[in-house]
Amino acid sequence: MDDALKSARSGDLTMLVAADRKSFIFRLNPGDMFQSHLGILKHDDLIGAPWGSRIHSHLGHEFLMFEPTLRDFLLQIERKSQIIFPKDLGYVLLRLSIKPGAKVIEAGTGSGALTTALAWGVGTDGKVFSYDRREDMQELAARNLSLLGVRERVVFHRQDIEQGFVERGVDALFLDLPTPEHYLVHARTALGSGGAFGAIVPTTNQVTALLLALERDAFALVDVCEISLRYYKTVPARLRPTDRMVAHTGYLVFARPLAQRFETAAGSDEEFTEP
Amino acid sequence: MDDALKSARSGDLTMLVAADRKSFIFRLNPGDMFQSHLGILKHDDLIGAPWGSRIHSHLGHEFLMFEPTLRDFLLQIERKSQIIFPKDLGYVLLRLSIKPGAKVIEAGTGSGALTTALAWGVGTDGKVFSYDRREDMQELAARNLSLLGVRERVVFHRQDIEQGFVERGVDALFLDLPTPEHYLVHARTALGSGGAFGAIVPTTNQVTALLLALERDAFALVDVCEISLRYYKTVPARLRPTDRMVAHTGYLVFARPLAQRFETAAGSDEEFTEP
Amino acid sequence: MDDALKSARSGDLTMLVAADRKSFIFRLNPGDMFQSHLGILKHDDLIGAPWGSRIHSHLGHEFLMFEPTLRDFLLQIERKSQIIFPKDLGYVLLRLSIKPGAKVIEAGTGSGALTTALAWGVGTDGKVFSYDRREDMQELAARNLSLLGVRERVVFHRQDIEQGFVERGVDALFLDLPTPEHYLVHARTALGSGGAFGAIVPTTNQVTALLLALERDAFALVDVCEISLRYYKTVPARLRPTDRMVAHTGYLVFARPLAQRFETAAGSDEEFTEP
Amino acid sequence: MDDALKSARSGDLTMLVAADRKSFIFRLNPGDMFQSHLGILKHDDLIGAPWGSRIHSHLGHEFLMFEPTLRDFLLQIERKSQIIFPKDLGYVLLRLSIKPGAKVIEAGTGSGALTTALAWGVGTDGKVFSYDRREDMQELAARNLSLLGVRERVVFHRQDIEQGFVERGVDALFLDLPTPEHYLVHARTALGSGGAFGAIVPTTNQVTALLLALERDAFALVDVCEISLRYYKTVPARLRPTDRMVAHTGYLVFARPLAQRFETAAGSDEEFTEP
Repeated sequence: MDDALKSARSGDLTMLVAADRKSFIFRLNPGDMFQSHLGILKHDDLIGAPWGSRIHSHLGHEFLMFEPTLRDFLLQIERKSQIIFPKDLGYVLLRLSIKPGAKVIEAGTGSGALTTALAWGVGTDGKVFSYDRREDMQELAARNLSLLGVRERVVFHRQDIEQGFVERGVDALFLDLPTPEHYLVHARTALGSGGAFGAIVPTTNQVTALLLALERDAFALVDVCEISLRYYKTVPARLRPTDRMVAHTGYLVFARPLAQRFETAAGSDEEFTEP
Repeated sequence: MDDALKSARSGDLTMLVAADRKSFIFRLNPGDMFQSHLGILKHDDLIGAPWGSRIHSHLGHEFLMFEPTLRDFLLQIERKSQIIFPKDLGYVLLRLSIKPGAKVIEAGTGSGALTTALAWGVGTDGKVFSYDRREDMQELAARNLSLLGVRERVVFHRQDIEQGFVERGVDALFLDLPTPEHYLVHARTALGSGGAFGAIVPTTNQVTALLLALERDAFALVDVCEISLRYYKTVPARLRPTDRMVAHTGYLVFARPLAQRFETAAGSDEEFTEP
Repeated sequence: MDDALKSARSGDLTMLVAADRKSFIFRLNPGDMFQSHLGILKHDDLIGAPWGSRIHSHLGHEFLMFEPTLRDFLLQIERKSQIIFPKDLGYVLLRLSIKPGAKVIEAGTGSGALTTALAWGVGTDGKVFSYDRREDMQELAARNLSLLGVRERVVFHRQDIEQGFVERGVDALFLDLPTPEHYLVHARTALGSGGAFGAIVPTTNQVTALLLALERDAFALVDVCEISLRYYKTVPARLRPTDRMVAHTGYLVFARPLAQRFETAAGSDEEFTEP
Repeated sequence: MDDALKSARSGDLTMLVAADRKSFIFRLNPGDMFQSHLGILKHDDLIGAPWGSRIHSHLGHEFLMFEPTLRDFLLQIERKSQIIFPKDLGYVLLRLSIKPGAKVIEAGTGSGALTTALAWGVGTDGKVFSYDRREDMQELAARNLSLLGVRERVVFHRQDIEQGFVERGVDALFLDLPTPEHYLVHARTALGSGGAFGAIVPTTNQVTALLLALERDAFALVDVCEISLRYYKTVPARLRPTDRMVAHTGYLVFARPLAQRFETAAGSDEEFTEP
């Protein structure tokens, strides 16, 4: 009756969700075994089962099997550092106008959550240029990207951005590092003009420092915001928010570079204008 | 010196932002005039100017000229109904796992904000199937999509969804209408299995009704959440949130269809199982 | 030099705060010992020390000694049930217009957090009438009130409120129980007219039920709200909210009883009006 | 049947609430007239009517008549400056442990919202000492206090607090002025020890400055927080938050003074301790 049922195939990215909603994400590979404290499952038993099936381990524990969404994947990536959360990532992608074919710079790479979301959004025709000094972080991010199957969309630069960015004329640039205010001139050069700039910082002091620098370095349309996500318990007869929530991840800052930096400075600071 | 400056060309989508941050979005067309209460500008004077330029109208009012981001565009679309806001749209796209090439159903079309964001994300290889009974809404949405240049990615169905959806095996399906609980069986059929379901409703009563129906109709991984966006005033020495904010747009509900609907029902309701 | 220093005296309510901000509240009593896993302190060594002193246990752990504020006390009361939190209590007291000399009814007693706050506010000339079926809860609340020294301001009724309240013409009445909508007629009778009604319920379904009943039973000026409290980390150079917060305690509902219930009903339901 | 109905008497503080919930607060005075754009009412027609009555003006507009709660009063006070809102006031009173008989200092007076709430809470046995340089503000606050009938509980000092406070050993002290960090030494002196300190500031930069000073001047148990209040539309079948809300009023900062300022400094900075 449900003739449109799609089934898991060898090579598919798969998510098993246990009764407590703990999830496990991996690729289906004939002959492999899935092992957890809840029991063992043969990949061969999963291959061919319809998505949305209930699967039982050898210990009798039930799992639901789904293709993970991008959000599922991002919440499960292996990490060595704080990641940017989906609630912020979704908005960042809209503010940076990420689309198939886009060219985007990010620094630093970190555990690769933003890298992953950007790579997802730019598609096979786009490219993400990701900067980080730490080789271990980029190796971790590369593993995460490979699992999702979007590794080839990312170019890693293992270098400090104090010397600037290699690319020119990118569509967007995002900074997730402690002192974004130090790199705005480099960001301008990489963006050329017309692109979109974004950053995330955890403290108000950093926001203040970045706002001062954005004004100094002739960025316009500056926005600072924070996004909150509140979940509800899903009992229909007792609908209410969960007891606790994430109170803070970071402040998001967005801006656009003005074309004529020096002209702008002159215009707003007339005593230095040539007679 | 800024050799990477990109300039506006004929046919480009353009945004002029006035001193009060009111913005105007249109396509550059040789010979056309931009007219507002702040004065007149010839498109020919804009064509060739670098993005990020300061432009002055014949009345001397200054505008900044940028390529609009997707968020800029969404906030400015012509509308006859409440739109889904960017804070929600970004998260919806992540939860629905929208990517280049994806096939997505939405109902209703409304003014086309979600339609636009979906069309943006699925790229030229993807497709959005948009249902609405009202011809005027779909014509409005089509105009908005055309302005952004993504009209051809959307197939409009001007029909009630009481009879179900035409498509099968889509990757995602989103309902933005008053009684989403009435259409879950149709949603299952269109999603097949493995896809992602989402909905937005403004009231808690609607959330309760939808939660009941999701359980009845064998959807799993149900989440209900709300997203808040708080802006800050961007004065570095006086950093503080704005005085007022949007308190509520809607509750977001996400779920995944289970593969075996009837088996599930039997399993959870054993007294009705055949001997 | 600090000639205004006030010192702890025998009988004073005292709070010791450890380095991790865990606090202990008790009354100073000559000869007694304070014992915790951080060590032992003689009350005699505390009596006579100025408030705000640093005190060291026999294990060398440091405590700060303060008079607890009402909020400190409320967060530390012995409890067997969920209490109403200070963020909500403060607002409830303002909405119920609690003042020295006021007469207030609450039901149920619970662990006595609201009882305590009300008793604090009404002073020695006021009175709190607290209803609960459970003897153990009222004994617990009585212990908490005694520790604060306000036990005599509270009259406990160990009885179900299905038969109504004993008092008449009270200034305010607050319901903290699962089905406040069942007791509105009794609440009207106790309040007479002119008083203030309040309730707290955890779920949206309860709010809906209460709103329906408030309309039916001729209450006016109905307000529903929720209060959020977000703490910040207090590092000056890294000011930012804490990572997590309480997402929800309950919905607060406030209303005022109209004087003429039947007249009101007639007025809004004209087919029953005498010709 | 409703034998407990209480009626408005001459001299009572009265609130009339129009259909749009706009409210008017005044004292009943025989012979006086209430006048608004909604029509005229004779006080003599209100005196003797039960609280909670529906009253009609000579133009036929309906009002509900209630005794205003403290919150009603605070939202309606005449003002020349931003007031502290009830959502913050309620929590401030709990954190400052305001009770009948307490002695409290505040600076500045402003329009007197906090003054009013403090005077309400300390009762006839307590006292509020309110400092402000501006005579017009104190006259305004005095008018508001007089209307509520608590004028005699407040002592106004029309003076700058740069020279310190007159009182010693008060129970609590609250600063609502731009640079609270300048007055902490004076606050310590007035509080003696054991009292509670609080402040409200609108910007994060001010919070940072105050946090630095609190550490420098030996205050402990420092908390920074912000309180949000979200109202719901009260339609039972369509329960949802209002569309917009207040996003920010101010950051609340609380602390307790340590007893031994200099000893403390030495203790935490051992290299400067005398041998």
